[in-house]
Amino acid sequence: MPNANPNAAPVRVNFAAGDIGEWRIRRMQVVAGKALASAPRLHVGAATDHATPTGAVWQLTGFTSNTRYTTADESVMLKARQEGLGRPHALYAALIPIRKNAAWWALAQDERRAIFEARSRHIAIGAAYLPQIARRLHHARDLGEPFDFLTWFEYAPEDEPAFDHMLEQLRASEEWSFVEREVDIRLAR
Amino acid sequence: MPNANPNAAPVRVNFAAGDIGEWRIRRMQVVAGKALASAPRLHVGAATDHATPTGAVWQLTGFTSNTRYTTADESVMLKARQEGLGRPHALYAALIPIRKNAAWWALAQDERRAIFEARSRHIAIGAAYLPQIARRLHHARDLGEPFDFLTWFEYAPEDEPAFDHMLEQLRASEEWSFVEREVDIRLAR
Repeated sequence: MPNANPNAAPVRVNFAAGDIGEWRIRRMQVVAGKALASAPRLHVGAATDHATPTGAVWQLTGFTSNTRYTTADESVMLKARQEGLGRPHALYAALIPIRKNAAWWALAQDERRAIFEARSRHIAIGAAYLPQIARRLHHARDLGEPFDFLTWFEYAPEDEPAFDHMLEQLRASEEWSFVEREVDIRLAR
Repeated sequence: MPNANPNAAPVRVNFAAGDIGEWRIRRMQVVAGKALASAPRLHVGAATDHATPTGAVWQLTGFTSNTRYTTADESVMLKARQEGLGRPHALYAALIPIRKNAAWWALAQDERRAIFEARSRHIAIGAAYLPQIARRLHHARDLGEPFDFLTWFEYAPEDEPAFDHMLEQLRASEEWSFVEREVDIRLAR
C-alpha cells in the first residue's frame, strides 16, 4: 500500500481483484447499482506497480488529492484523532467504490458542502469512529473511471460492528440520496 | 477543441506544441519558474486524439471537472454572462499553465476559498471581462503533470489589452503569491 500524506502530491493507487493479492475478499455486497465480479483476493498497489496482476477480474484506479470540503478547524480535529494505514492490529479492511449521480455534480461548491456536512454530517460521523477506523479517499471520476470515489478503510476485526454502524448513518443521510452505485467489499489480511 | 460542459463528465484535453496544430504560437513568456521550450504551433485535442503529433516539443494534459470554489449564486451569474469556446471572431487565444506551491495545497477548503475569492476576488475579476474573454479550466495536478492548472482563453484580437489588464489584476492578488510556476502562451488561428 503506497503512502499518501493528504497534503503531499497526489498518489495514484490501483485496486486489482483476482487470484493474487495481500488481501482476501471476505464478501462483496452491492448497495446500489451494478455489482462487481467476485474474486478471491485483492491486490493494492501503486498504479505504476509492475506487480499489478495482469489477469485481474477487475481493476479500479484512483488518486489521493487535496481535501475538497474539509475546513481548517475540521482538519485540525481530524489530524489530532486519526491514525494511518498499515497498523499491525488492523487486520480487516473495506474498499467502498461509490458513484454519485449527475444531479450531485451539477451542484455548486457551497451546495455540495451544505449537503455533505451541514445536513449530512459526513465529517462528524466519520470523526466519531476515529482512531479505530483509518481511512483514505481516492478520487476516480476525473480519470473516467466507473466510480467517482474509492474509499479504503482499515480496522481491527472487533471494530467491524462500529464500522457497520458508521456506514448505516452515512447511508441514511441526504448526501447518500445522490449515490447511484455503491459496492461494499470486505477484506482480511 | 473537444466540447466540455462543466457539469458533464470530465473531458481530458491534450495541448501539444510542435510543428503542427491549428494555433500559431505568437509568443511565450515565463511569468514564474521554468520556461517551456518554444515551438511554432499548438495542437489542441482530446487526450485520446490519434491526430496528436508524436514529435511534439512538449505536451500538457488536463481534465475539465466540476467547479471547486464557485458558489451557486456565482455560478448563475457566470452562466448568464459567459460565452463558449469556438466563437468565429475569437481569433486569439492564450494557454496559461500554472503551478501552485505546497503551502497552497496544504490549506483547507475554507482557507483556499477565502484567499481565492474573499481576498483575491478571482471570480469577480474574471466576471468583469465576460463575455469578451471565454475561458475553460483544465486540472492537471492530479495527473502528476508539471502544472496544476491549464487555463485556456479565447477572445477577439481587439480584446487583448483587456485580457492583459485582467491578468495584471489577478497576478497582483494574494492568491498569486502561491503561484510558483506560470507560463503565458499567446496564440492566433
